[in-house]
Amino acid sequence: MPKKIRLGILGGGGDSLIGVLHRVASFINDNYEIVGAVFNPNYEDNVNFAKEIDVPTNRIYKDFDALVEEELKLPEDERIQVCSILTPNFLHFPMAKKLLENGFHVICEKPMTTTYEEAKILQDLLAKSGKVFAVTHTYTGYPMVRQMREMIKAGALGKIHKVDARYYQGWINAIIHDKEKRSSVWRLDPKKAGISSCMGDIGVHAFNMIEFTTGLQIKSLLCDFNYMYDDNVMDVDGTVLIRMDKNVKGVIRASQVATGEENGLAIAIYGEKGAFRWEQEKPNFLYKMSDTEPVQIYKPGHAYNSELSLDGTKLPPGHPEGIFDAMANIYLGAARAIRGEKYNDGEFPTMLDGVRGLNFIESTVASHKQGNVWVDME
Amino acid sequence: MPKKIRLGILGGGGDSLIGVLHRVASFINDNYEIVGAVFNPNYEDNVNFAKEIDVPTNRIYKDFDALVEEELKLPEDERIQVCSILTPNFLHFPMAKKLLENGFHVICEKPMTTTYEEAKILQDLLAKSGKVFAVTHTYTGYPMVRQMREMIKAGALGKIHKVDARYYQGWINAIIHDKEKRSSVWRLDPKKAGISSCMGDIGVHAFNMIEFTTGLQIKSLLCDFNYMYDDNVMDVDGTVLIRMDKNVKGVIRASQVATGEENGLAIAIYGEKGAFRWEQEKPNFLYKMSDTEPVQIYKPGHAYNSELSLDGTKLPPGHPEGIFDAMANIYLGAARAIRGEKYNDGEFPTMLDGVRGLNFIESTVASHKQGNVWVDME
Amino acid sequence: MPKKIRLGILGGGGDSLIGVLHRVASFINDNYEIVGAVFNPNYEDNVNFAKEIDVPTNRIYKDFDALVEEELKLPEDERIQVCSILTPNFLHFPMAKKLLENGFHVICEKPMTTTYEEAKILQDLLAKSGKVFAVTHTYTGYPMVRQMREMIKAGALGKIHKVDARYYQGWINAIIHDKEKRSSVWRLDPKKAGISSCMGDIGVHAFNMIEFTTGLQIKSLLCDFNYMYDDNVMDVDGTVLIRMDKNVKGVIRASQVATGEENGLAIAIYGEKGAFRWEQEKPNFLYKMSDTEPVQIYKPGHAYNSELSLDGTKLPPGHPEGIFDAMANIYLGAARAIRGEKYNDGEFPTMLDGVRGLNFIESTVASHKQGNVWVDME
Amino acid sequence: MPKKIRLGILGGGGDSLIGVLHRVASFINDNYEIVGAVFNPNYEDNVNFAKEIDVPTNRIYKDFDALVEEELKLPEDERIQVCSILTPNFLHFPMAKKLLENGFHVICEKPMTTTYEEAKILQDLLAKSGKVFAVTHTYTGYPMVRQMREMIKAGALGKIHKVDARYYQGWINAIIHDKEKRSSVWRLDPKKAGISSCMGDIGVHAFNMIEFTTGLQIKSLLCDFNYMYDDNVMDVDGTVLIRMDKNVKGVIRASQVATGEENGLAIAIYGEKGAFRWEQEKPNFLYKMSDTEPVQIYKPGHAYNSELSLDGTKLPPGHPEGIFDAMANIYLGAARAIRGEKYNDGEFPTMLDGVRGLNFIESTVASHKQGNVWVDME
Repeated sequence: MPKKIRLGILGGGGDSLIGVLHRVASFINDNYEIVGAVFNPNYEDNVNFAKEIDVPTNRIYKDFDALVEEELKLPEDERIQVCSILTPNFLHFPMAKKLLENGFHVICEKPMTTTYEEAKILQDLLAKSGKVFAVTHTYTGYPMVRQMREMIKAGALGKIHKVDARYYQGWINAIIHDKEKRSSVWRLDPKKAGISSCMGDIGVHAFNMIEFTTGLQIKSLLCDFNYMYDDNVMDVDGTVLIRMDKNVKGVIRASQVATGEENGLAIAIYGEKGAFRWEQEKPNFLYKMSDTEPVQIYKPGHAYNSELSLDGTKLPPGHPEGIFDAMANIYLGAARAIRGEKYNDGEFPTMLDGVRGLNFIESTVASHKQGNVWVDME
Repeated sequence: MPKKIRLGILGGGGDSLIGVLHRVASFINDNYEIVGAVFNPNYEDNVNFAKEIDVPTNRIYKDFDALVEEELKLPEDERIQVCSILTPNFLHFPMAKKLLENGFHVICEKPMTTTYEEAKILQDLLAKSGKVFAVTHTYTGYPMVRQMREMIKAGALGKIHKVDARYYQGWINAIIHDKEKRSSVWRLDPKKAGISSCMGDIGVHAFNMIEFTTGLQIKSLLCDFNYMYDDNVMDVDGTVLIRMDKNVKGVIRASQVATGEENGLAIAIYGEKGAFRWEQEKPNFLYKMSDTEPVQIYKPGHAYNSELSLDGTKLPPGHPEGIFDAMANIYLGAARAIRGEKYNDGEFPTMLDGVRGLNFIESTVASHKQGNVWVDME
Repeated sequence: MPKKIRLGILGGGGDSLIGVLHRVASFINDNYEIVGAVFNPNYEDNVNFAKEIDVPTNRIYKDFDALVEEELKLPEDERIQVCSILTPNFLHFPMAKKLLENGFHVICEKPMTTTYEEAKILQDLLAKSGKVFAVTHTYTGYPMVRQMREMIKAGALGKIHKVDARYYQGWINAIIHDKEKRSSVWRLDPKKAGISSCMGDIGVHAFNMIEFTTGLQIKSLLCDFNYMYDDNVMDVDGTVLIRMDKNVKGVIRASQVATGEENGLAIAIYGEKGAFRWEQEKPNFLYKMSDTEPVQIYKPGHAYNSELSLDGTKLPPGHPEGIFDAMANIYLGAARAIRGEKYNDGEFPTMLDGVRGLNFIESTVASHKQGNVWVDME
Repeated sequence: MPKKIRLGILGGGGDSLIGVLHRVASFINDNYEIVGAVFNPNYEDNVNFAKEIDVPTNRIYKDFDALVEEELKLPEDERIQVCSILTPNFLHFPMAKKLLENGFHVICEKPMTTTYEEAKILQDLLAKSGKVFAVTHTYTGYPMVRQMREMIKAGALGKIHKVDARYYQGWINAIIHDKEKRSSVWRLDPKKAGISSCMGDIGVHAFNMIEFTTGLQIKSLLCDFNYMYDDNVMDVDGTVLIRMDKNVKGVIRASQVATGEENGLAIAIYGEKGAFRWEQEKPNFLYKMSDTEPVQIYKPGHAYNSELSLDGTKLPPGHPEGIFDAMANIYLGAARAIRGEKYNDGEFPTMLDGVRGLNFIESTVASHKQGNVWVDME
């Protein structure tokens, strides 16, 4: 009979979509209670938002530093246990760093940091701290993604020899084709958004999905970006040739100019004995193929599913799971870790996933900028 | 800046799936706080469950009557404002009746009552009470179901002339084909489950979906049930021929022995100018057809969607909505009504939907038992 | 090393679509050669069409009677062996009758005749003649339809307990909603089109599909038609409740006013151990479902397919089969029968299928006209 | 009222699948008559096969040279007008060369030759000959592929900025993973199959599909192959980064080890105003997407389709077109050209398509072998 975990929120106020997603996810499995927050840099907006969503205002702080300072004054059994970092990317690193240094668990949006170097600093810090650190690669929380991972681990595909992951969106078209807009939007400003737009924002999810489901690591890559216009220096489209183990190859395709695509994350994994295909927009349908048998469609909530998949399914077959469920599964895993309970590998993405992600992003930029050469990942 | 609505829960404890669904739905839009409950008939289980989900135990009551009695003693601004009834069907009526008589709003699972007569009694009571009464026909909360309704209302299909709704499941096979099981399960015992199994449990959702989306009323019907075995007296499958306005006809197909079907609610609506097709298991895809134009696929969250649809969409296009979102939309509409805020027709199913549902179920049974004759609905 | 079968064609000239379909089907498996024809009632058009498609004009006759008379004068090894009847429905019976009486094999479009009585007369005649008679229920020629039949026969679904077949089209909307057009089109004139429009034209295919795939016979039915307008006496939409063996029930849904539907023939068959779903517009995908296993998608051309299915597949998996292939499979089966070679049950629809079809159509009309009562089939 | 074109066939005897495909395609639109052939290198098999498919044996020749020699002796109005080359790849070039030199039209399977150099020799020869030369890139014959091309030409997508084409199959798994088989199969022997397996056999179709539909030319490429095993020297998988006009980029993905994939050719084309997605295994469904409107599904046979698309559709909407229809459309276009009739650009792939294909294949091999560098196409 667990007591709810005391959760602090950084960012995610107002109309923030990521704010809704994290809040709902924290509610779904009855594990968290929001006790403190800095939803907004403007203190008045901050307090008003807390009232709007009915969070007590006594622990709504004027800024992040105040939150840390004041919370540390509270007795340990009242203090925030874990903070969710939902702020702009460049704040992830300083916030995560300070939180770890002061004994808080962390749930951090991706990209975990803006550079691989920062990511490795956090990694060292975490090792010493003994705390829980979850990076919200939301899509790994879908029951059928977990099903892929478990079946692959159990050998259902045999040796994997080819992987193809895609993340296509079209939303940046309205910006990139407009000279005014593309020169003013923060997403295309390297100072604000980091060294990559498309690969850093969505390509990294495709990368993470491959490593999460297959259990393999990408060893080297060769990347070609498209900036679309000469006056734009941020990638809005890119294709990455990848090499994993010897003769295991693949491709990651990411685009923000794939007109009409909404949130088109998809993966296909081919092995000696079978293959999987899955698409995020129809998350409850997992296709298992082989060269000799009829295609099989796996769906959530069945007795034939793996334990990890069933753990992330709350309702019987035929009741569609959505994105809130996926994020909620990650919060559930993190809750178990925070409470020191037993949990399975794969229940939530750890800092290691964040570190790999930054390594990936920087490698793609290096490959493209050096003229589409192969770059080794660490 | 609204204060959260004080919610009481009746039933839904332990592993109850419907309990999870309502609880999550109440959280999602930050509108409700669970302040009191009778989760379970056993008081110890009841309290333990409250602890497990971290609801304060001071207002966990030993039974429904105690809840009403004790809550009425509290000052009005602390008292439960609305109760969700998640108990077995035969308890819906007495609970809903007493709640309305004592000034509580009600959110009630379907079927609203076990007889049409009871439903009409509640209807009279509600008219006098001035309270809000929502029946959780969950599926009307999906953004694309709302989109159909609004577009039909705006004339997108022209005059509707044919409707075809289906609700197919296969789960009762494991019971019905086993003589022992089918004679002992409460679902097939008319004393416990009411006069209909298949039509009362799922056919009524298909019925409701037709009336919700088209705005038309079914005037008469002819029904054929299948009991599968001579020693079973409850329908596990049924087909209903329906007539709406003159020369507007259709069919409702419901089955619990449709092997391999999970939760196969679907609707097709054909009009002079166009048609819609929608399936619950892929709720984010609405197909609009015409005789002369390419088929169109509507998806949630786009600027082209209706206000009612967008109101029920929390995230941008491509982030799959699931069943929790659908139920949450109904809770949101009810919250607005409870607070006396403005809300649109169709935001949540009202008691009238419940009354129509019971009228439908009793009419199907009458039609079948009288030898598949046409029966008028009121 | 067979010699090609000498084929005569009745009807199907000019832009006739059914003409193209039969001609191509006869070519596909290298079994037939068109040697004589009456493509058109106008002799000049008839000859010109023969030239256009490069059929020798010496055996293009001025009318059907001339064709029979002249062909009988030819030596038996030059004479037409089989005639395809592609004329308007009311001509099917007299032509088929005379052909059988004069020793020709027959391939006949459906409906085989315009009345059940005529159908039974042909049936008697055929029994005496020892000839081959194929009715072109084209859709039974699809490889995956054959796969269903064979797997059901082999027990893959266990005892079947529910069947649901649909044939929805929308093309008659443009006619039925126009008072002028609906009173002048031959399709809605009982003198020209027989006693039923929708059920006779397409409902009968759904009926045939059920009996072909399940091996069960429909014993009784109850039907409701929709005429849409009071000045129209032909059904353009209808739903049929059906009963097969005891407690085996189902529904046939047919419509010509299902706006936006093209050629929406589909079937779902539910049994104790499993179920099938198949749609004509995606003919290469057969879905096998069960309550406990992942859904399976069967596709043509695989080693796992039945002999009958593989016999109707000419290319490797992944090369889409279309409607020409389906019709060609029926011509192939008929060719084997005409040559007296061994063939399997199910390779082509026989006269019995035609007889059952007429029995079905007349029964639906009787049920509707008598006030939606149950009518027994023979 | 055209007379049928006199067709000769080279190869395609016995169980040859490509033989069936070409023969059926030549029948479908009543344009061709097979008058001579060398179906098989063995003369007895050759003649027997002719008897089996009922082709007169008097012009079945012992070899290709005899065919040319003897046909040239016949009067021009009896002589073969066009030859279809269905032999192993290395024979395409010498046969096509001799046919052109002797005044025959040619229909040639792809790859047109085994080297780019040979392709250019044919190109020169063709320019002088004034003959028709069709390369059977079958997939361009599908009505919805033609629809894409025409709509793109008419500006439906605006300026195209990204292209993604895939051709995935899994059939070589059974060979490549078996040391014995992979060292003995002709497909993986460069002497017999040319310099590339995967890219030469299927990647080139994806390449052709891009250039056919978009009207753009690929200017340079960078390629990575996978040989899977060190003792194998032929690509069985490859990914190609492509650049078309400035800032117009894309990817071609081809694989023969994509386990469970059958014949997975697919294309996605993204432009400023809209996008297309199409898959060969569901050839009758063309998806048009935009950032602001509902997705549209185009299907064959509608009045809204382009002239070129409708020209390739023989039946009304809802009657599935298959691979035979696609090939038949190419034969139809070639027939018009052979007869000197008017035909539209795009009705059949010309030698230019063959030349581009060889240029592509050689470029991919060069890119891979030189260490994944960019290679310009001519």
